[in-house]
Amino acid sequence: MRASRRGEDLPASPIRRLIPLAEEAKRRGVRIHHLNIGQPDLDPPPGVLAALREAHRERLAYAPTRGLPAVLDAWRAYYREHGVELAAEEIMVTAGASEALTLALRTVCDAGDDVLVPEPFYAPYKGLAAVADVRLVPVPLGPGFAPPAVADVAARVTPRTRALLLSNPNNPTGTVYGRDDLAALGALAVERGFFVLADETYREIVFDGPPAPSALAVPGLEEHAVVIDSVSKRFNVCGLRMGALATRNREVMEALLRLAELRLAVSVVDQLAIAGALAASRPYVDTVVAEFGRRCDAVAAALARLPGVECHRPAGAFYVVARLPVADAERFAAWLLGDFALDGETAMLTPMADFYATPGRGRDEVRIACVFDAATLTRAVEVVGAGLAAYAGSTN
Amino acid sequence: MRASRRGEDLPASPIRRLIPLAEEAKRRGVRIHHLNIGQPDLDPPPGVLAALREAHRERLAYAPTRGLPAVLDAWRAYYREHGVELAAEEIMVTAGASEALTLALRTVCDAGDDVLVPEPFYAPYKGLAAVADVRLVPVPLGPGFAPPAVADVAARVTPRTRALLLSNPNNPTGTVYGRDDLAALGALAVERGFFVLADETYREIVFDGPPAPSALAVPGLEEHAVVIDSVSKRFNVCGLRMGALATRNREVMEALLRLAELRLAVSVVDQLAIAGALAASRPYVDTVVAEFGRRCDAVAAALARLPGVECHRPAGAFYVVARLPVADAERFAAWLLGDFALDGETAMLTPMADFYATPGRGRDEVRIACVFDAATLTRAVEVVGAGLAAYAGSTN
Repeated sequence: MRASRRGEDLPASPIRRLIPLAEEAKRRGVRIHHLNIGQPDLDPPPGVLAALREAHRERLAYAPTRGLPAVLDAWRAYYREHGVELAAEEIMVTAGASEALTLALRTVCDAGDDVLVPEPFYAPYKGLAAVADVRLVPVPLGPGFAPPAVADVAARVTPRTRALLLSNPNNPTGTVYGRDDLAALGALAVERGFFVLADETYREIVFDGPPAPSALAVPGLEEHAVVIDSVSKRFNVCGLRMGALATRNREVMEALLRLAELRLAVSVVDQLAIAGALAASRPYVDTVVAEFGRRCDAVAAALARLPGVECHRPAGAFYVVARLPVADAERFAAWLLGDFALDGETAMLTPMADFYATPGRGRDEVRIACVFDAATLTRAVEVVGAGLAAYAGSTN
Repeated sequence: MRASRRGEDLPASPIRRLIPLAEEAKRRGVRIHHLNIGQPDLDPPPGVLAALREAHRERLAYAPTRGLPAVLDAWRAYYREHGVELAAEEIMVTAGASEALTLALRTVCDAGDDVLVPEPFYAPYKGLAAVADVRLVPVPLGPGFAPPAVADVAARVTPRTRALLLSNPNNPTGTVYGRDDLAALGALAVERGFFVLADETYREIVFDGPPAPSALAVPGLEEHAVVIDSVSKRFNVCGLRMGALATRNREVMEALLRLAELRLAVSVVDQLAIAGALAASRPYVDTVVAEFGRRCDAVAAALARLPGVECHRPAGAFYVVARLPVADAERFAAWLLGDFALDGETAMLTPMADFYATPGRGRDEVRIACVFDAATLTRAVEVVGAGLAAYAGSTN
């Protein structure tokens, strides 16, 4: 018995294609620097661990579909710190940003609708769009990964356009959309009648300025903005699945809740684990942001020493995009795992073709996740550099 | 801005329609017996609480998409106790049975496919089918809520039929499918080429016999059986979201994993909380099952004393279906909350029309969840009885 066609057609992620090679390398005793996954090595806020210590005292009953009242209050306090006043009915708790995106795409789009997305973008948006039966319409970021020009977005709007999906700051490029950028894109959304789905998972992780402004703070966008959120990155708790959806559009929130009812509720333990930390997220988050800044700087500096490599210091998030002097970055990433080691070490990179919807783009790019200390990252980039030198001389 | 059509069309559950009335009754000081939700008041296994006490020591990193190896091993040990040998690649961890159903329907069915479902069935199957873009084709259960006759199932098979979705034991009727029932339905599935999606959430909760047999234990059904599982009911941990998918069909499992990758992983804390209890689930579960048997007996006995009420003692799960002497059970349920109290008490019932796909069926039926001790349940049924007497004399 075969799976469904839509089940078979769903693409495997490039990382998944590389995992068997990584496992094989580990069996050979090679140490792998995992630059491929956005999972930092930092400790969570003390409040998260304190809450987990008390978790066994909780009644393990279904939470309300929207979330536990105490956790909704904590999200409200958190948004208030970021200058956004929300009513409890304007927020719901989700199992991470992934679930929030799944719920949001289905709730604002019908099958066959178009969703504009600045590229490169977080690669799983492709699969999430496929599951929602919507088409991603890419809009190139500007020079130096700047926010896309409004005219470039406007040129792609059709009657089927239902949403603009952006992440702010952007994974993988670190692009930060400022108030003016959001206001200009928001004005277009209002004029042409589409939603702005803003994935603000990396909100605070901005290196030379204040946190990225929320789409919820843009005047006039009340009916159009739907914010996707997650604490995974700002609290270094990827293993908890804790996110949120926030919108002032009551019809959208009602539909989101009807859809979310089908999964009944989100884990009460995960919810309670983050409530205290959410309501008082600084100065923990400030420390984390400073550390990510140092790490990205170290990676950018190490990459700058490699011949033929171009890279861009990101303004936010914690990834560095590098253009490598290779024709096919996925093949090089596979070669690094399968055929290369420097003193028993190699590195796992994320090839970036899947971060684009435009065929052919990004084939020579990789994403480096700055998830270790600066010295380890510097060494990892040196390993990549040695790999590039050896690869150029190989028959590949 | 309106939500999508599919977002607006998704039906609200009948319970959700009743919640505002329940909240209003509570504001008036009325005590509500919540017979409407399958959330027992029993304590979880000690192993769950012990594991939660240690949760703050865990690294809160993404689990593998399939689940933590230790938890997959615990599921294997659990299935082995139930006579089913599974490889680690034949199981994946899910966020409860709800996520397992969502993933399974999309992975075995394409849009527009038919799914046969014995009715009455767990009402959220309707919304889950809508999200998967499949059509539920109801097959009536036999007399006394017996498993459906194979001929009745066969008569509804068409070229669009991709699956039979059954819950064993069945929520809401407690119907238990024995080995012969599963073998006969399985033979039809193999002959006509459709999957058997077996929701075995209530597996052990069978009152006068061994646990319900798993579809994974039916010879010849290796390629066709996909089992949906959850620990919510057997461990009284509805607040954790912990379930599983198990199938020996490798293509289906590969497609399930590609789909599950989009949500990255399931909470590590919830996963670790259940591992120990899963690997040694008895005698805890035996105690729980005995208690549910006493509760269902108490409810059936109390209902038998009410004039004009028909009910059926369930063979498993922990619900009792009652036919009431009213034309519209939803209207009666609303009246109980909005217009009735006996000594300051009333009851919240689940009207059953939404448990049927056939229009008009179940309109005089309610589901009673036996989730309190026998004395409380007996009192709650007496309150319902007093309500019925008053309702008959009212102008409704």
